[in-house]
Amino acid sequence: MADVSYSFRSIGIVRSSLRDIHDAPNQASEGAPEALLEIDPAFAPALHRVAPEQDLILLTWLHRADRSILQTHPRGDPNTPLTGVFATRSPDRPNPIGLHRVTITAVESPTLLRIAALEAIDGTPILDLKAV
Amino acid sequence: MADVSYSFRSIGIVRSSLRDIHDAPNQASEGAPEALLEIDPAFAPALHRVAPEQDLILLTWLHRADRSILQTHPRGDPNTPLTGVFATRSPDRPNPIGLHRVTITAVESPTLLRIAALEAIDGTPILDLKAV
Repeated sequence: MADVSYSFRSIGIVRSSLRDIHDAPNQASEGAPEALLEIDPAFAPALHRVAPEQDLILLTWLHRADRSILQTHPRGDPNTPLTGVFATRSPDRPNPIGLHRVTITAVESPTLLRIAALEAIDGTPILDLKAV
Repeated sequence: MADVSYSFRSIGIVRSSLRDIHDAPNQASEGAPEALLEIDPAFAPALHRVAPEQDLILLTWLHRADRSILQTHPRGDPNTPLTGVFATRSPDRPNPIGLHRVTITAVESPTLLRIAALEAIDGTPILDLKAV
């Protein structure tokens, strides 16, 4: 199979009180704090019609993940059966893209969005936002 | 904002009877054909415990997308209001990552998965698979 690589540029960055991946919950529903999405001003037009109370899909680049991991015990529990990462939500995987459903709570400026809860740490690069 | 770029390698490729983006439906539920996910054998261990009847999240790289587009009329309908791409599911966006919920119908070989319906065209690079 052709070994092709692609490149992308982050469209923004996560701002959060979570500083360490060991403090991050597995899912936003498990006590994650609110966060800010600081979008690069070059992409302001792409946020037109994003508004409070919308749910969006946020894709991030989990820059602290281990890209060499192919199998894991789900949820880090050694009692769960060893499973291929493509059948799990482990952040450790060949292309560590984080998938998060987020709720916009405020548009603080044209390129600064406040969201209700996010399990990604401060400094996580943002790849994309999409309608649910 | 720091202009940081990242790189990734595709983990596989979509095989489909859809050859042209103009023939592709907007969503898998809109008459998309079944497809094959041909995963690079190097990542076979990451598919351990993937099995028929599972639903997974498939992330693709929409290589034919226009990355310069920041606003669009949703569903290509000029009667819909112009909207930032981050509030839509348009394939045209700065980082054209496709998000698809797929159902595995057969595991044809350790690295060849048949899925029920997919709107991505033949040759689309695969970035990631995740549990729903």
